[in-house]
Amino acid sequence: MSRPEFREPSFRVAVVGAGAASSEEVRLATEVGRQLARAGAILICGGLGGVMEAAARGAREAGGRTVGLLPGTDASDANPWIELPVPTGLGEARNLLVVRAGESVIAVGGAWGTLSEIALARKIGRPVVTLGPPPAEGLGCPAAEEPEGAVAWALDHARDLRSGVAE
Amino acid sequence: MSRPEFREPSFRVAVVGAGAASSEEVRLATEVGRQLARAGAILICGGLGGVMEAAARGAREAGGRTVGLLPGTDASDANPWIELPVPTGLGEARNLLVVRAGESVIAVGGAWGTLSEIALARKIGRPVVTLGPPPAEGLGCPAAEEPEGAVAWALDHARDLRSGVAE
Amino acid sequence: MSRPEFREPSFRVAVVGAGAASSEEVRLATEVGRQLARAGAILICGGLGGVMEAAARGAREAGGRTVGLLPGTDASDANPWIELPVPTGLGEARNLLVVRAGESVIAVGGAWGTLSEIALARKIGRPVVTLGPPPAEGLGCPAAEEPEGAVAWALDHARDLRSGVAE
Amino acid sequence: MSRPEFREPSFRVAVVGAGAASSEEVRLATEVGRQLARAGAILICGGLGGVMEAAARGAREAGGRTVGLLPGTDASDANPWIELPVPTGLGEARNLLVVRAGESVIAVGGAWGTLSEIALARKIGRPVVTLGPPPAEGLGCPAAEEPEGAVAWALDHARDLRSGVAE
Repeated sequence: MSRPEFREPSFRVAVVGAGAASSEEVRLATEVGRQLARAGAILICGGLGGVMEAAARGAREAGGRTVGLLPGTDASDANPWIELPVPTGLGEARNLLVVRAGESVIAVGGAWGTLSEIALARKIGRPVVTLGPPPAEGLGCPAAEEPEGAVAWALDHARDLRSGVAE
Repeated sequence: MSRPEFREPSFRVAVVGAGAASSEEVRLATEVGRQLARAGAILICGGLGGVMEAAARGAREAGGRTVGLLPGTDASDANPWIELPVPTGLGEARNLLVVRAGESVIAVGGAWGTLSEIALARKIGRPVVTLGPPPAEGLGCPAAEEPEGAVAWALDHARDLRSGVAE
Repeated sequence: MSRPEFREPSFRVAVVGAGAASSEEVRLATEVGRQLARAGAILICGGLGGVMEAAARGAREAGGRTVGLLPGTDASDANPWIELPVPTGLGEARNLLVVRAGESVIAVGGAWGTLSEIALARKIGRPVVTLGPPPAEGLGCPAAEEPEGAVAWALDHARDLRSGVAE
Repeated sequence: MSRPEFREPSFRVAVVGAGAASSEEVRLATEVGRQLARAGAILICGGLGGVMEAAARGAREAGGRTVGLLPGTDASDANPWIELPVPTGLGEARNLLVVRAGESVIAVGGAWGTLSEIALARKIGRPVVTLGPPPAEGLGCPAAEEPEGAVAWALDHARDLRSGVAE
């Protein structure tokens, strides 16, 4: 059986970004998804369009696993690359669930929603790396130049989090 | 590849029950998990002990997929049979997420927590079948005699829900 | 300062029941609200119609205080007798917030939603008294015959809860 | 009836900021609370220490009304200036409830938690004004120099929100 296992010790990495993404953000997110899949990580996202869909597509096309924590009550709102839709019905409160379900977070571009996810992630101790233009300045999160760097950083820090290494 | 796919068109079935279960409840839940796995369904549960653990164990031992929506903030609270832990940090509010994530619900015995899940499930339109002594009387949910009947009912009704058939 | 205090030691009592209530349930809920107000308690409810509106109306007409924890995102969904609307946007997850915000719970009639509130309340240790036909049998909660008894019981148990007396 | 009404048309203004505040932030928040009270607005906050406590104290000392939406399950976690404690048990997800319950938001200093509140508020369309050093740069929210300006801005925008004026 060649595809990655959807279980321990797979890492769970959250990818966050806008539902309406630029073509460059789509390119970055797709590549992030692909590389997470190749590394055997599970992609956690908000399950909708834009960056979420691009990342899920990249992951699925590379044989990876994808989870979508949706704001609404309807599983069919999920983009077609989501294997496991979780309709939370919690509205924007699902943003917290996305970053908590991940062991680290990659933020691709983004606006207010993404900024809330970055801030909530940092508040609860999740490592965050940004890729593309961050939604605010002075966040103090590392910025990756390319998907490779973001994914490598996210996996390293997910490993540290799981093993209890302080950031 | 012989094992079931963790994706559409796999059905998602929630199994709910007490964290402190009787040996009979453990037997029933384990068998429910096993049969859900054999049918290719994804098991959704609360991720902790008792009925949740028994169902997840049954599912995993039969090669199935298991998701645990945890009340706390620590993924390591999940029982060892959970492939995908989702630490919600929402306390008992995660009960609603469990039944919403399922397309139908099997309640194995249970007490107040399980009763809340049955009631929330019915409130939002999820079909519920009980197995073992229900947590209250007069609920009007069908009661299965054995795991086979509960699983068959749950899969039938998950199919109906997905295809938009009114209950 | 002569005005009633909206603070300690006012007790907070949750009144739960269906959004579509019978005329008898409306009568009971209105009287419950009135008597809670006269006792200086703050009424917590779900903020919508039926039992929630009747209780809030009874409370306000008697000069009491009313809080509505709404499922939706719009404060203007609150019935006109709600002084403090709290639009949670959490859907049915707000049921848990209603019973947690109260120090005891009076359930007037009700169906699935009310049953979920009774079960969640008991799960987290809130005392519950029912009035009118309960939404299930065998709940083991005391049943009051009339509003007077329900309110007296709820205030007694709110007092016990606050002072740390075990139920 | 001579007592201040805890209802429409009182505006609800959320004040957010760190639980560990500088003395300057405490000064600013206390004055914000005082002026909100004098304007007849209801103060919504997270109910804990630092900026939350200072704002609530300022409001209560000026005879105003204060609501604390707490992250934990225990109403007694609220600071002593909170009239109405609402223990949500939702952890950081209560940040969203705080800004949704307000009709506008004043952010006093702050760090990650406050940044999440600003971002969530903007995401759901709540007007935000900052006072003191904002938790990130480039947010695009207006910055007030003194409490007077922040309170005036917040009340104006709460009024606009309620009357349906687009920002």
